[in-house]
Amino acid sequence: MADAPKANAVVAQSGGPTAVINASLVGVIEEANKHSQIQNLYGSLHAVVGMANDEFIDLKKVSADTLEIVAASPCSALGSSRDKPDEDYCSRILEVFKKRNIRYFFYIGGNDSANTAHILNSMADEINFDIRAFHIPKTVDNDLLVTDHCPGFGTAAKFEACALMGDDLDNRTLPGVKIDVIMGRHAGFLTAATVLGKQRDDDGPHLLYFPERAVSMDKFLSDVEGVLKKLGRCVITASEGICDSDGVTWAKKLVEEAETDAHGNIQLSGTGALADYLAAQVKSKLGAKRVRADTFGYLQRSFAGLQSEVDVREARWCGRHAVQFAMEEDNGSVAIKRLGNGADYKVELFRTELKNVAEKTKSMPDEFINAEGNGVTDAFIEYAMPLTGGLPKTEFLGNRPKI
Amino acid sequence: MADAPKANAVVAQSGGPTAVINASLVGVIEEANKHSQIQNLYGSLHAVVGMANDEFIDLKKVSADTLEIVAASPCSALGSSRDKPDEDYCSRILEVFKKRNIRYFFYIGGNDSANTAHILNSMADEINFDIRAFHIPKTVDNDLLVTDHCPGFGTAAKFEACALMGDDLDNRTLPGVKIDVIMGRHAGFLTAATVLGKQRDDDGPHLLYFPERAVSMDKFLSDVEGVLKKLGRCVITASEGICDSDGVTWAKKLVEEAETDAHGNIQLSGTGALADYLAAQVKSKLGAKRVRADTFGYLQRSFAGLQSEVDVREARWCGRHAVQFAMEEDNGSVAIKRLGNGADYKVELFRTELKNVAEKTKSMPDEFINAEGNGVTDAFIEYAMPLTGGLPKTEFLGNRPKI
Repeated sequence: MADAPKANAVVAQSGGPTAVINASLVGVIEEANKHSQIQNLYGSLHAVVGMANDEFIDLKKVSADTLEIVAASPCSALGSSRDKPDEDYCSRILEVFKKRNIRYFFYIGGNDSANTAHILNSMADEINFDIRAFHIPKTVDNDLLVTDHCPGFGTAAKFEACALMGDDLDNRTLPGVKIDVIMGRHAGFLTAATVLGKQRDDDGPHLLYFPERAVSMDKFLSDVEGVLKKLGRCVITASEGICDSDGVTWAKKLVEEAETDAHGNIQLSGTGALADYLAAQVKSKLGAKRVRADTFGYLQRSFAGLQSEVDVREARWCGRHAVQFAMEEDNGSVAIKRLGNGADYKVELFRTELKNVAEKTKSMPDEFINAEGNGVTDAFIEYAMPLTGGLPKTEFLGNRPKI
Repeated sequence: MADAPKANAVVAQSGGPTAVINASLVGVIEEANKHSQIQNLYGSLHAVVGMANDEFIDLKKVSADTLEIVAASPCSALGSSRDKPDEDYCSRILEVFKKRNIRYFFYIGGNDSANTAHILNSMADEINFDIRAFHIPKTVDNDLLVTDHCPGFGTAAKFEACALMGDDLDNRTLPGVKIDVIMGRHAGFLTAATVLGKQRDDDGPHLLYFPERAVSMDKFLSDVEGVLKKLGRCVITASEGICDSDGVTWAKKLVEEAETDAHGNIQLSGTGALADYLAAQVKSKLGAKRVRADTFGYLQRSFAGLQSEVDVREARWCGRHAVQFAMEEDNGSVAIKRLGNGADYKVELFRTELKNVAEKTKSMPDEFINAEGNGVTDAFIEYAMPLTGGLPKTEFLGNRPKI
């Protein structure tokens, strides 16, 4: 391995926002400031778009005070993009890199971003232009391979837990059926996290549905009926990507139904449709009273002022380690290894190959889902709880003995 | 006025949850413990239901530590009810009161609760059974008369502000049109509160719509088009109760449209329908790309772990003052008077007649809404900001000069 070159660096943020993707950015900036090999540190505006169009800001000029506010702010302070660069697009980026003598590339994002870093690194190799390309993991969905968990998930998990702690108390206050649709098209980690705030045996959510386990409408309704009989109320969380027993997502079925009916201006693919549909089924098929549904939407990834301390700390470490790794290695993705759990929760960071993370996604392991497919196991709780950084306690008095 | 009787007291919580209705409950409990005139303090389960069915718990037995957790927990720790008691119902309640020698009644709720307290007080007078009935204000909607503001609003306002601070950064990250539908059928205070986190000139929300100002679809679309042309993105918040120019709510029109189309299993009155409809209009009529919609739902009133310090302190004071007032007066509703604003924000509490608060509701005053009817004035911000107890700061780097 050659010595780390004295050159310029670029950092960019890709994909959907999280609450701590800016903490990773600040980690890159503060570590880059420590290494004389990195001369200018450019922030690319809107991910690959800025890199292809030569649109950068100077990150060495941002004050330390401002950086602390950036680290505490949700979403991508540099902007993001959903562009998937093809070969031409990548060539344009490499032209810009050459022109500006950019030899370090730090990319904070999901599996697509790891792939982009991998492609850019390989293409640069082919033209004998050495760049060091590093991927820094972020997702709220927690669906990246190799790493124990993704920065961004811990805070989103805390959001889900706090949301359901409140929503379950709301449902105790005014009993009925409550259905919450949670982010996660292919992975159910965030829906699973809705259990983390449970403190009493009969706390909700009582039923959970994940993309990893198909559920028929009959099974869903019979589950709800069972809980209603036992508790007189029922709180349900379901991933937006849940499937019918034929493997087709409920969301897709709703769109097809709407299209069949040729309804021009009713968007069943809209954000509230799945929740409203499930609520309507419970109301009409079970005759349940007070059925309500919410779809949590973007609040889950971008609510301001809510961060898991553990998550934000680890996100920042990941940014710093990417720069440290780049002083020694040609490329890689930063990954988290768990060394201890519970009160002894502890992690270390390591480097993995970009190709190990690129394009692939992780689902919830079987050991995290209960046998019925409608809840989580203790193994999941043990896995996810430390990532929230701790949750508030709540009290409900209504189940105390009557006098 | 006769001396305060030595007798038992009941406290109950009514209507929809808020984040600080339990702080008011704890205020009642801690103050009641100081007055020897109050012997037992009963907590009625599920508001008037517990009072009519003789279902109470003993609030003197709750430890001080537990009370602090109760005060920090959202929703009604005693449960709630949507029952509107008629005369028979009230007679049953008074029978229970007589049987248990309950002569103090503290009712935490909205204008309906003030009315129930008023009716019970009057009916008790008629049968020469003296009770002291006090109403303690709570709503997230901030729609009660007399009081400067309602406990519960400050925290909900903080939620809206944090939500939109995040959502606007999300929209900067991945630009497009974002529509958020906010609680408030008749009063637009919560929608107005979505502006409170704005820190930069071009921060969203850029357009706000309230139940107090009708808006036609044409006007709405032309507003959105204007912002899109100027900023290339647009964040909108709208109350669930917004009306068309003919005064009919958009929500009602959507239901009627669905009924006309005889769509059995599509519930356009569902929670996501208005947001999805507005998004579909923007997409189809303006051809805008990346149009997204969220409906915030119950999170606004029950999210755990989020309280405005000012709100929770005032809610607790209101509970304590209700008991203090009951030592001197026959009945009343606790109200807040503002003595100073901004950095000098300060309030005092006073007693008003139950009939002044009962059944009536308050809308946003004209001085809080801009001339266009699609935004707020500085007067609103001055009014609402102190109630949030302070908001986090955020940073976005993407609008810095390019290099």
